[in-house]
Amino acid sequence: MPSGGRPAPGSEGRVLDLNADLGEGFGIWRLTDDEALLGLVTSANVACGFHAGDPATMRRTCDHAVRLGVRIGAQVGYRDLAGFGRRRIDMDPADLRDDVTYQLGALDAFARAAGDRVRYVKPHGALYNTIVADEDQAQAVVDAVRGYDTALPVLGLPGSVWLRQAAAAGLVTVGEAFADRAYTPAGTLVSRRSPGAVLHDPDAVVARGVRMATEGTVLSEQGTPVRILARSLCVHGDTPGAVEVVRRLRDALRHAGVALSPFC
Amino acid sequence: MPSGGRPAPGSEGRVLDLNADLGEGFGIWRLTDDEALLGLVTSANVACGFHAGDPATMRRTCDHAVRLGVRIGAQVGYRDLAGFGRRRIDMDPADLRDDVTYQLGALDAFARAAGDRVRYVKPHGALYNTIVADEDQAQAVVDAVRGYDTALPVLGLPGSVWLRQAAAAGLVTVGEAFADRAYTPAGTLVSRRSPGAVLHDPDAVVARGVRMATEGTVLSEQGTPVRILARSLCVHGDTPGAVEVVRRLRDALRHAGVALSPFC
Amino acid sequence: MPSGGRPAPGSEGRVLDLNADLGEGFGIWRLTDDEALLGLVTSANVACGFHAGDPATMRRTCDHAVRLGVRIGAQVGYRDLAGFGRRRIDMDPADLRDDVTYQLGALDAFARAAGDRVRYVKPHGALYNTIVADEDQAQAVVDAVRGYDTALPVLGLPGSVWLRQAAAAGLVTVGEAFADRAYTPAGTLVSRRSPGAVLHDPDAVVARGVRMATEGTVLSEQGTPVRILARSLCVHGDTPGAVEVVRRLRDALRHAGVALSPFC
Amino acid sequence: MPSGGRPAPGSEGRVLDLNADLGEGFGIWRLTDDEALLGLVTSANVACGFHAGDPATMRRTCDHAVRLGVRIGAQVGYRDLAGFGRRRIDMDPADLRDDVTYQLGALDAFARAAGDRVRYVKPHGALYNTIVADEDQAQAVVDAVRGYDTALPVLGLPGSVWLRQAAAAGLVTVGEAFADRAYTPAGTLVSRRSPGAVLHDPDAVVARGVRMATEGTVLSEQGTPVRILARSLCVHGDTPGAVEVVRRLRDALRHAGVALSPFC
Repeated sequence: MPSGGRPAPGSEGRVLDLNADLGEGFGIWRLTDDEALLGLVTSANVACGFHAGDPATMRRTCDHAVRLGVRIGAQVGYRDLAGFGRRRIDMDPADLRDDVTYQLGALDAFARAAGDRVRYVKPHGALYNTIVADEDQAQAVVDAVRGYDTALPVLGLPGSVWLRQAAAAGLVTVGEAFADRAYTPAGTLVSRRSPGAVLHDPDAVVARGVRMATEGTVLSEQGTPVRILARSLCVHGDTPGAVEVVRRLRDALRHAGVALSPFC
Repeated sequence: MPSGGRPAPGSEGRVLDLNADLGEGFGIWRLTDDEALLGLVTSANVACGFHAGDPATMRRTCDHAVRLGVRIGAQVGYRDLAGFGRRRIDMDPADLRDDVTYQLGALDAFARAAGDRVRYVKPHGALYNTIVADEDQAQAVVDAVRGYDTALPVLGLPGSVWLRQAAAAGLVTVGEAFADRAYTPAGTLVSRRSPGAVLHDPDAVVARGVRMATEGTVLSEQGTPVRILARSLCVHGDTPGAVEVVRRLRDALRHAGVALSPFC
Repeated sequence: MPSGGRPAPGSEGRVLDLNADLGEGFGIWRLTDDEALLGLVTSANVACGFHAGDPATMRRTCDHAVRLGVRIGAQVGYRDLAGFGRRRIDMDPADLRDDVTYQLGALDAFARAAGDRVRYVKPHGALYNTIVADEDQAQAVVDAVRGYDTALPVLGLPGSVWLRQAAAAGLVTVGEAFADRAYTPAGTLVSRRSPGAVLHDPDAVVARGVRMATEGTVLSEQGTPVRILARSLCVHGDTPGAVEVVRRLRDALRHAGVALSPFC
Repeated sequence: MPSGGRPAPGSEGRVLDLNADLGEGFGIWRLTDDEALLGLVTSANVACGFHAGDPATMRRTCDHAVRLGVRIGAQVGYRDLAGFGRRRIDMDPADLRDDVTYQLGALDAFARAAGDRVRYVKPHGALYNTIVADEDQAQAVVDAVRGYDTALPVLGLPGSVWLRQAAAAGLVTVGEAFADRAYTPAGTLVSRRSPGAVLHDPDAVVARGVRMATEGTVLSEQGTPVRILARSLCVHGDTPGAVEVVRRLRDALRHAGVALSPFC
């Protein structure tokens, strides 16, 4: 696992997890450069077959992750290959719970075959967004996780209904931050539909990531500092140049004395 | 669990498992009368989502099976909802192995949530038929089972490549017989494409099942007695009147002193 | 085609279409008694493969419909086999338009092979309900129909955004009524979540259907008469006894002098 | 449409079609550089949704093809997204016929919306290979095409059962050749499993394509000239550098006086 060498003054003990979505191909199709990303992150959110991720891709991703000491998380989503899980589906909560249970078990089979196991759960796409606020769907995912393994941590947006209900159910919750997303002064994410919601300048992304890790703050759209306490930083690998940004961010974090280490 | 009361003379100690395919609906669609069958069999081959079996059906079937003490087996099949897994697919063995691993893990999640676990594996439909003779596909399924849990028994046709290779790999193998299928003098099943391959007369089916269990033989198409040593009898529930035949068979077996009990 | 014989006094010229959802199986699974229903209705809403309806079922249903002179309508739905198209999906309108176009073309191939063609479009399930009010999704379906054939009528709920926008786009619109659903005094359907929303008493259903056809009214939940001007009556065939109710309704309509005839 | 300028001596009147598989993405996933290829070929084999090709991709590909004057062919395949239609499925011929009909109709809807229509049919992957020799599956595809439009040409391997049975059924058949595949002295393709079956050297591919078009021959593996009479040349766009090879081949053909023009 990565270590940060000699830490910068004032940042002793800073430890951060880097998580990324991986294994998001299906059959012949690929989306992310899984090999490159697995060499950079500490936690891999592996697609489980419903929005992406055929069994062969799942096995390959799990095998590779375990070889590199990267933790495997279940990236569960809506059953929607055609829409890549990016469209909200008004599901019955019991059906959603069962869909999540199914995906969890399927991925765990590959994680175990690779010598490890699923270490955490992070919902994908529209499901991720829906359970920021939707109590019924959030509870459905919580119920699936708890029914599978009460010791399994869940990863998500700080302040979300998802993390709140998971905590209320006794699950370990881990908050994540985004170095490439704009924040409101209240500490929530600016909607992707707003201009400027996603930062594309690599320098800005790297600088924000380091600031989040070392100072625990981010500048909001309005320029005000916002407190961000996240044990994990989510990075993206599905755009051109994305891997290079992650590499630079990783190097900058280590240079700033931040130790990169899985949260579980 | 079922017990046989006072055994008939000469059949002391006969123990038989009754297995049936269950949970073979998908979403709104149903195929078998799962509730009725679960009250009659000792082992349930539960569909895992690839040829049939959506997550909600899988959970319901597992919950019900565990309540009744029926053992849960993974009925793994080709990814072919439109063809109900009844069409051979010329898959790469590594992909087939991964498809089986995926299904095993998914069903196990529901079995465990219900308080038990997957106890055995029985392939479905065209996969069942293919691995009677196809060494590559048989080995792919063996590899999936062994990679998941080396202690998991596999159920299949006595003399098949599937059971032979499973045994060679160190897996526990269990043979099954069919009370409603015609046998050749060599002890193999008459092809479904031949007339008379499937018996439809309930009396004949019941009589054959009892003879298999008590004498270990069946009369071939030619009328010659054939040795059938099967720890499990496969029954079908997907035709009109099927449940009633299973009920009669079960009663006749118990009357003949055969104890009905899972093989695992 | 059905004819009403000697009409009852005062109802001369009443003509009604009976439409039902058909072909809603998939692969091995069946839902409705298509053979029986096709002998009773004048228009068949045939599932197009996205919420139900595999190609073999589509061909069989179209062949049978054409033989009996029943009109074929495209029952288009969300891509959601597991949920039978009953879950709203927050789709991009352009994607929804394309999904509808795809289904329309696919069904038309079977309708033409059977010697006729798709005669109208009626959305299914959650899509039907969504476009009662959702302007973007309604427009997406309108655009698909208009792009396919500007002469294709659309069937739906009177007063819905769907029919209003279809009319504004120059499409022929046809309203339908439900003999087994409760109506509000304003003439809208009582939500299925309310008790009493669906009538189960065959006598009541038949009486309401006849009243709708002969008087153009229905009694609301509150007992007030509501004007219902529908050229088509939707009947259901997916519940036990449903076919018998349709048969009785059909007989009663003809006895009341209502001619049963497709709207296109 | 492309024209060849002043033809080289001795090759007057040579006319060739260039066809390529296009639109082979699904949802978020892409495979080929459709935009680049559509600027180079004269016929586009567009995936129809069963092995690849979601509705949005189908519309986009058809719109673009029609704008550029490229002919749209239906690239029909097995229902196998996970295997990209590259695995033979032992289907009932009637079911295969219906699957092909479904895909044909679906694509035609987009072709017509774009202002043209489906102009030919070319099976994909394992279906293409299967019907080189399998009479039942070949006839199923023939039946689907004939049932859809008896004037629709079919494209395939010269000498295949597929083209022979199509011709016997009265369909127009068009043979194709491959500039990047090794041929046996008998004029059949060397199996992909043999070393050297696929040529990767761009110069060799271009030279062979020109020779096929101008002389109607190719050198077999053994170096003997083989007669190749093909109205269409199949090019591939799914490997790195593939588009550049197609561009060079196209330029070389035109320089050699070969007019590039669709076969229909």
